[in-house]
Amino acid sequence: MSFTRVAIIGLGLLGGSIGLAVRENLAQVRTTGFDLDPATRRRAGERALVDHVCDSAAEAAAQADLVIFCVPPGAMAAAARAIAGSVPGHAVISDVGSCKLAVARALTAELPDNPVIPAHPVAGTEQSGADAGFATLFRHRWCILTPPAGADPALVAKLGAFWEALGARIEQMDAAHHDRVLAVTSHLPHLIAYTIVGTASDLEEVTQSEVIKYSAGGFRDFTRIAASDPVMWRDVFLANKDAVLEMLQRFTEDLTALQRAIRVEDGAVLFDHFARTRAVRRSIIEQGQDDARADFGRRDH
Amino acid sequence: MSFTRVAIIGLGLLGGSIGLAVRENLAQVRTTGFDLDPATRRRAGERALVDHVCDSAAEAAAQADLVIFCVPPGAMAAAARAIAGSVPGHAVISDVGSCKLAVARALTAELPDNPVIPAHPVAGTEQSGADAGFATLFRHRWCILTPPAGADPALVAKLGAFWEALGARIEQMDAAHHDRVLAVTSHLPHLIAYTIVGTASDLEEVTQSEVIKYSAGGFRDFTRIAASDPVMWRDVFLANKDAVLEMLQRFTEDLTALQRAIRVEDGAVLFDHFARTRAVRRSIIEQGQDDARADFGRRDH
Repeated sequence: MSFTRVAIIGLGLLGGSIGLAVRENLAQVRTTGFDLDPATRRRAGERALVDHVCDSAAEAAAQADLVIFCVPPGAMAAAARAIAGSVPGHAVISDVGSCKLAVARALTAELPDNPVIPAHPVAGTEQSGADAGFATLFRHRWCILTPPAGADPALVAKLGAFWEALGARIEQMDAAHHDRVLAVTSHLPHLIAYTIVGTASDLEEVTQSEVIKYSAGGFRDFTRIAASDPVMWRDVFLANKDAVLEMLQRFTEDLTALQRAIRVEDGAVLFDHFARTRAVRRSIIEQGQDDARADFGRRDH
Repeated sequence: MSFTRVAIIGLGLLGGSIGLAVRENLAQVRTTGFDLDPATRRRAGERALVDHVCDSAAEAAAQADLVIFCVPPGAMAAAARAIAGSVPGHAVISDVGSCKLAVARALTAELPDNPVIPAHPVAGTEQSGADAGFATLFRHRWCILTPPAGADPALVAKLGAFWEALGARIEQMDAAHHDRVLAVTSHLPHLIAYTIVGTASDLEEVTQSEVIKYSAGGFRDFTRIAASDPVMWRDVFLANKDAVLEMLQRFTEDLTALQRAIRVEDGAVLFDHFARTRAVRRSIIEQGQDDARADFGRRDH
C-alpha cells in the first residue's frame, strides 16, 4: 500500500525535486502542489514539477493522503495553518526541514488531528527556486525519519517506502539527536562558509577583485555553500540554535588550539592534525557520499 | 626566446602537472626532473612526467636554463642547496610555493648568484603524489609572479610567457601582498576546513559513522580540502604565519558576531549577512574561476 495523492507545499529545489522524482519513479501517484510565490507557481507549471499546480495550499491538500511541506523552517507553521481546514484527517503530514524538533512542534500544533512524521532528506545544492529541482536529487542520499513516540509503525514504513522509491536510503532517529547530527554535518559548515566569505569581502588591503581572481586556492568551495538560500539558512540557525551554538563552541576551541600551534610554530601538532583528517574523506568516498574524482570532478572551465 | 631546458625538482601534483603541460604545449622544451622519494621517481618515469628522471637534483639542474622547485615550502632551502654546485649561473630559479616571502628568502640565500623569480600558480586539487598531476591543471588559472626589486624585466617576461604557454594567466605583485591575498583565499580556508573535520571526528554524542553518512549536508565539501597534503600545509602555516594569524583574527571576530546574532535570535542580521555572500559566488563563476553547474557538477555517485 503506497500513497496515491501527494501534496507538495513549496515548489523550490526540494519540492520540485520530489515532484519530478515521483513522476519518474512512482507513475501511479498523483501530485498536487502550491507555492506562495506566483512566479514560482507559473514556472512549476511550465516545468510540470507536479501534475497540478493549485491556487492555494488548501486546494492542493484537499484530497491528499500525504502532504510534504517544503518551505523554510520559519514558514512551516503558517503553511500548516493554511491547510488545516481542508486536509483529510487520515493524511500523513511530513516535511523536508533541516531541523526536526522545532518543525515537528510547529506541524503538530497546527494539525493536531493528523499523523505527523517529520523527515529530512540530506540532499541539496546551492541553487534554489522552481528551476533548481531535478529528479535524481535524492538518489544514494540518506533520508532521516524522526517519528514521534507513538507514531503508527505502518505509516512510518509507508513514508520510508515512499522515500526509497525516490532513490533515498532510510534511517530513523529521534528529533533531538537528528538536530545535533545535522548541526555538525550541515549547519556549522554553512555558518563557517557564510562567515569566511563575508570576512574576505570586507578586507581593505585585499580587494574583492583579488579574492575572486585567486579563489581557486580553496576559497571558491566556500562560496558555493555560502550561495545557499538566505531565508532558509536564517530559519535553520534560529530553529536549531542550541545545537548549533554548542557545536560552534567546540569548533572555536579546536581552532584556537591550531591558532596557538601556528603562533608557537609547533609543526608537529599541525602535521598530526592535518594527517588524520584524510581518513574521513576516504570513508565518505568509500560509502558513496561523494564523488571520488579529484576536485569533485569539476570540469576545466 | 623561450626556455629550452627546464628542471623540475619535486614530481608531485604540481611538478608532474608542469612536466605534462610542457610536453603538451611546448614540444621543443626538454624537461628533467628529480624527487627525493625513489617510488615517486619510478612512477614519474612510468608516467613520463618529464623527459628524463634523474638520480639527483644536481644532475637534473646541470643543464637547465629554468629550475622550478615544486616541493613544500619547508623543503625549499635544502632542495636549492642540492643544486648549488651544478646549476648554470644564468639559469632562472623559480618555484610554485604558496608563500612567497619565505620561499624567496630561502632560494636567494642558497643560490645568490642566480636570478630568482618566485611564482605561484593558484591551482591544485586535494590529491598529491606522482599520480596526481595532469596537463590541464593550469588552464584558466592565475599564476602570480613576485619578482624581487631589480629583477631583469626580460627574464620576468620570459617566465610569464612560459606559464602562459601552459594555459595560465599572469599577474605580478610584491611578495608581501601575495602572502596576504593567499592567506585569505587559500590558507585560511584550509585551516578552517582542517579544523571542522577534526571537530566532527572528535564528538562523542555524534558518531564518526553518522558524520560520514550525513556529510552531503555540506560537511563533505570541507573534507575534500582537508584531504590535502599535510606536509605542505604544515609548511604553509609556518611560512606565512603572520598573515594567516591576522586573517584568522578577523574571521574570528566575524564568527563571534554571527554567533551573537544566533544567540539573541536576530534574524535580520543573519539574513543580511547570508544574502550578500551570494554575489561573490556569482562573480567567481562569471570570471571563469569555478564550474557554473550546481554542486560543482558532481555526478550522481
